[in-house]
Amino acid sequence: MSSIKELEAVFAPKSIAVIGASKKPGTIGNQVLQNLIDSGYEGKLYPINPTAPEILSRKAYASIKDVPGDVDMAVFCVPEKLVLGVAAECAEKRVKAYVVITSGFSEVGNKAGEEELVKIAKATGGRVVGPNIVGVLLNSAKANASFAPCLPYPGRTALISQSGALLIALDMATFVRQLGVSSMISLGNMADVDFADCIDYYAHDPNTSCITLYIEGVKDGRKFIESGRKAGKPIIALKAGVSAHGAAAAASHTGSLAGSVKVYDAAFKQAHVLWAKDLDELLDRSQALAMQPPMTGENICVITNGGGIGVLSSDSAEAYGVPLKTVPKDLQDEFKKCMPDFGSPKNPVDITGGAGLAGYEAAIEVALKHDWVDGLAVLYCETAVTKPDEIAEGILKAIEKSAVNDKPIVACFVGGEKCLEAGKKLLAKNIPCYDNPDKSMSALAALRQVALFNAEGKEPDFKAFAGVDPKKAREIIAKARADGRGALTEPEAKEVFRAYGLPVGQGKLAKTVDEAVAAAKELGFPLVMKIVSPQILHKSDAGGVKVNIKDEEGVRAAFATITENAKKYNAEAQIHGVLVQEMAPMGKEVIVGSVNDAQFGPTVMFGLGGIFVEVLKDVTFRVAPFSPKTAMGMFPEIKAYGILQGARGEKRLDQERLSEIVSRISQLVTDLGDEIAETDANPIMLYEEGKGLAVVDARIILKKK
Amino acid sequence: MSSIKELEAVFAPKSIAVIGASKKPGTIGNQVLQNLIDSGYEGKLYPINPTAPEILSRKAYASIKDVPGDVDMAVFCVPEKLVLGVAAECAEKRVKAYVVITSGFSEVGNKAGEEELVKIAKATGGRVVGPNIVGVLLNSAKANASFAPCLPYPGRTALISQSGALLIALDMATFVRQLGVSSMISLGNMADVDFADCIDYYAHDPNTSCITLYIEGVKDGRKFIESGRKAGKPIIALKAGVSAHGAAAAASHTGSLAGSVKVYDAAFKQAHVLWAKDLDELLDRSQALAMQPPMTGENICVITNGGGIGVLSSDSAEAYGVPLKTVPKDLQDEFKKCMPDFGSPKNPVDITGGAGLAGYEAAIEVALKHDWVDGLAVLYCETAVTKPDEIAEGILKAIEKSAVNDKPIVACFVGGEKCLEAGKKLLAKNIPCYDNPDKSMSALAALRQVALFNAEGKEPDFKAFAGVDPKKAREIIAKARADGRGALTEPEAKEVFRAYGLPVGQGKLAKTVDEAVAAAKELGFPLVMKIVSPQILHKSDAGGVKVNIKDEEGVRAAFATITENAKKYNAEAQIHGVLVQEMAPMGKEVIVGSVNDAQFGPTVMFGLGGIFVEVLKDVTFRVAPFSPKTAMGMFPEIKAYGILQGARGEKRLDQERLSEIVSRISQLVTDLGDEIAETDANPIMLYEEGKGLAVVDARIILKKK
Repeated sequence: MSSIKELEAVFAPKSIAVIGASKKPGTIGNQVLQNLIDSGYEGKLYPINPTAPEILSRKAYASIKDVPGDVDMAVFCVPEKLVLGVAAECAEKRVKAYVVITSGFSEVGNKAGEEELVKIAKATGGRVVGPNIVGVLLNSAKANASFAPCLPYPGRTALISQSGALLIALDMATFVRQLGVSSMISLGNMADVDFADCIDYYAHDPNTSCITLYIEGVKDGRKFIESGRKAGKPIIALKAGVSAHGAAAAASHTGSLAGSVKVYDAAFKQAHVLWAKDLDELLDRSQALAMQPPMTGENICVITNGGGIGVLSSDSAEAYGVPLKTVPKDLQDEFKKCMPDFGSPKNPVDITGGAGLAGYEAAIEVALKHDWVDGLAVLYCETAVTKPDEIAEGILKAIEKSAVNDKPIVACFVGGEKCLEAGKKLLAKNIPCYDNPDKSMSALAALRQVALFNAEGKEPDFKAFAGVDPKKAREIIAKARADGRGALTEPEAKEVFRAYGLPVGQGKLAKTVDEAVAAAKELGFPLVMKIVSPQILHKSDAGGVKVNIKDEEGVRAAFATITENAKKYNAEAQIHGVLVQEMAPMGKEVIVGSVNDAQFGPTVMFGLGGIFVEVLKDVTFRVAPFSPKTAMGMFPEIKAYGILQGARGEKRLDQERLSEIVSRISQLVTDLGDEIAETDANPIMLYEEGKGLAVVDARIILKKK
Repeated sequence: MSSIKELEAVFAPKSIAVIGASKKPGTIGNQVLQNLIDSGYEGKLYPINPTAPEILSRKAYASIKDVPGDVDMAVFCVPEKLVLGVAAECAEKRVKAYVVITSGFSEVGNKAGEEELVKIAKATGGRVVGPNIVGVLLNSAKANASFAPCLPYPGRTALISQSGALLIALDMATFVRQLGVSSMISLGNMADVDFADCIDYYAHDPNTSCITLYIEGVKDGRKFIESGRKAGKPIIALKAGVSAHGAAAAASHTGSLAGSVKVYDAAFKQAHVLWAKDLDELLDRSQALAMQPPMTGENICVITNGGGIGVLSSDSAEAYGVPLKTVPKDLQDEFKKCMPDFGSPKNPVDITGGAGLAGYEAAIEVALKHDWVDGLAVLYCETAVTKPDEIAEGILKAIEKSAVNDKPIVACFVGGEKCLEAGKKLLAKNIPCYDNPDKSMSALAALRQVALFNAEGKEPDFKAFAGVDPKKAREIIAKARADGRGALTEPEAKEVFRAYGLPVGQGKLAKTVDEAVAAAKELGFPLVMKIVSPQILHKSDAGGVKVNIKDEEGVRAAFATITENAKKYNAEAQIHGVLVQEMAPMGKEVIVGSVNDAQFGPTVMFGLGGIFVEVLKDVTFRVAPFSPKTAMGMFPEIKAYGILQGARGEKRLDQERLSEIVSRISQLVTDLGDEIAETDANPIMLYEEGKGLAVVDARIILKKK
């Protein structure tokens, strides 16, 4: 986690130098200085220009070194070739924040220049924003340190964007959307300051209630997750580049690698970050997240004057995972007093088109005061007989009268110009108002999710298992590396698994048929026998597996067949021997695997075996390490969850034990994240509740070094 | 299909009587008359009022019978108790369209009154709109025959709504959304005129290019599908009440039963109706559908000045099933001339923020003129250096210069007030413009789907199989009914299936063990034997099935066990005997079933057997009857499609034969739709390509009569 103190110069600078400030209109150096003046920046402002003594009526300095006092932030508006020289001068001056608008770095392949820039800044405790950015727009500091035309519409959302063009467009869009923003930060190439730093800072910023991110790719996934969890504030992100083609476009755009959607989906959950499906959802939900408290229970009450929009809100609520429920009888009785006979008090509470202002006011107050209600949506269809403006006033009055302020409230006004105006009035009083019932339900669902995240707490979601033996695991890996191998053999991989407390069946490696017979006698029947060869990873394909061996004769026959098949399959294969192994009873086959993601590092996958993984791609991920509780949360995410729950009259499977094993694997791949590229525990035989599981086959692929 | 001539009085009346016209402001009778005058209705207008000689400066009549000339349309603004009397007078007058605003009919349980109303009107060739509606708002006829405040923003979308409150709200929303509307029709209880009638009419209306529906429930599903297919015009619908709770709310709202989502989903496809996921999508897509031609190929080109919105458009395109592809080399070369070096010509074509007006104009012209491009999206992020207004002008100029008018074009302007203004300018010239790249891709995807629907043609999607024997099937059913049974036994059901050419294995019903042995000898081994009892539907549960019987001894043993088990299971069960049947070789188990949907009638379901249906609910539907080609379209809709395609090294399964069988079953359940409630061919053993399939078990449940 970054030091908040260190970041203050970036997000709340007391003095700003504009390096490359210019008299010439149309240049960035002119625009940025003008913007800082226009935005009413009240700190010290120093134009830096080698020749001009004064720019835009401000005294200018030839070099930042000539500035009399301290400089918190330097905004770089100079050509790329001057950046490193200027940075060196900033370092001498002990500048804390380098806001580098200049482009021409990693986005065009100049990675070295970018690294050097960061090195220079960091050497004296400075932080770099950018390069290749629009700048930073800080409403609370009244500082538009950017070439975007003006500070955004003021409010409590911090908006962080990896795309500069989008940031400028959104800057202007904040006014038409009435989206209140505390700051807009352009991150560009993210050579230093990244999403995690922004989250760290805005988590502590009293002017910010919601952190909104446009992400093309995060650079340090683990730092992102840690910062998100610690924030304890609503965070919402739009991840661009989720399609194959889109990812390619994103890569060409910012030079950052995009992780797979499923990994991002997992990481966002673990970082307590809400996923926005598109730009509208990002901005619409941000409004609600910034203005309203989390929804601490699951009971939404919808009050409407139109049956149609009521039904639509019910459909949407279910789609967003917060289905409406019929309100309790006593509350129905109270609602009945607020509506004509042909209204409906059940939920949606339809006070009907004729109900008017008084009906709304009464019903809203009733709803907010009732314990059952956790969140409220007030829907309004413009009618010929009611005035949107009055309804908006009535909503505000009823909320005030109820004196309830810990339940989220959203509104939806469907209609014309007057509804837009009424909506603006509500927004000005911190009631999010939409023009589509779907959006109001999306907003409440987001506020519900924030409460669920809050309930999970800010602490890291993992406590290491005791009694694991990383040292032994590393010895086994070291031995394989010494042999020049990039993967462990099955017995080796199983040994590593065993070192982390995984239930791997007993087995012995037999080099001769007699050794196999001896091992069989020691282990007892039935048995499985498998070829062990570094060159044969797909043992079944090679005819290298025999199951259900019941006696000595079987062992002898299997040994002969397996070794013969292996030689046929690959004459060059180096044969370590044949693994003789206890045969696990049949259970439901599940798979736990891991990858080492470029952004997020070791990441664990779970799914059911066979067609579920191969045909249905029915899998889910979590970034490692994580607790058994988090592993339990993975299971309902697969489509075949019913099978784990005991479908078709079968017993529920041992999800508790499975969750522990998944968590242990997450510890293993994290501890050995520097060595292991991929693992597979496939299949695991999972038995019914209380009866545990058995890891039947194991594979570990090492990182290329 | 309705007679268009008959419907003209509803949608383009030459004369209108307002029954219950009133001098008193605030009454519906006053409002409707005022609205007709205000909207500039040019036909003959007759206020009807028992006492007033003149209303709103118009001569009034005591009864419609006193009106001198013909009356096309009568708008009912009288209380419910007067409606039937007035209707009788209208019938005498040979009124053609009864627009019944009055409520108090089936929506409050008064079904009889509603039926009587329709009966009176129909007796003299009249049609009823409503009751319980807002009225009809006809822009081309300049007739606001409703109590909604004004005619909607003029344009080419016909908007039909089952919810009156929503219709009024949308009426006003058309102005802020600049959604051009030809007519708005409030359908209310749909006692007579329904969605299909509206589709029939607007399919032929030269002023309408897109038909937009808000549906809570259709009443005659088959008529809906037929009208939709025949329309040959874009139709888009928002189906409300898709959630369990929402359906309940819809039912209380309009009194119509809501079919299951999956059946509606199927019916919409078959009716060539696009599904809108929410109100925004309904209205946003309607704009594009009304303004732009269908997209006849799948190549979308995106031109953008911002990488971020480009990536987002690419993500959305994939999500909507129209993924972007890299443009061909020669087109890339042409694009390169329109952008600076650091732009990207691949798709999204990123002309970069610096490109400005000239870049847009050149790139748009290049794109439209190139054969590869089937549809174009022009995205724009507001920047500090370009003017949205000029970009909009440039887009229009480039389109005109290209002289291309058969490719759809949409725009997306992200920014502030100036972008909104520019968007309005584009809309006024029939270029749909959105504020979110997602919406522009949704619009192009919709236009692509219209082209695919058009390619399917307007004809009904079914040609009956020859050589089927419905007479025989009916005889079998009649016999079961005569026995007082509600379901067929397995041999009976199989006989019905056989009458429709389904490959059902040979079998014999044996009443005694000796009959069973004789049957076995005739059929040959291996065999399956199953209990046949009207009281035992779940044969396996009753221990009433034995498989893989290999010899006479086995037949004898099986007969004894099966009959014994059946008696244990249900001592009262009437035992018809034991079915002795050829045993089909193992294949992939699939299920074809049917239900008799309340709205759509016989509807066929397809899925894979076992957990796929029971746990994953991985099934898909089509309303019967339909062609083998349509059946082929069902297969890729299931998640387990990979298995039909030959997953994990297996051969592709015989989808061609399966599609024929599914189509035959659709014919069977349609022909016998008056008799059959449900069928199940479960399991069907499906074999590899060219090797067909075998129906192993069959069940037919009869309709309650």
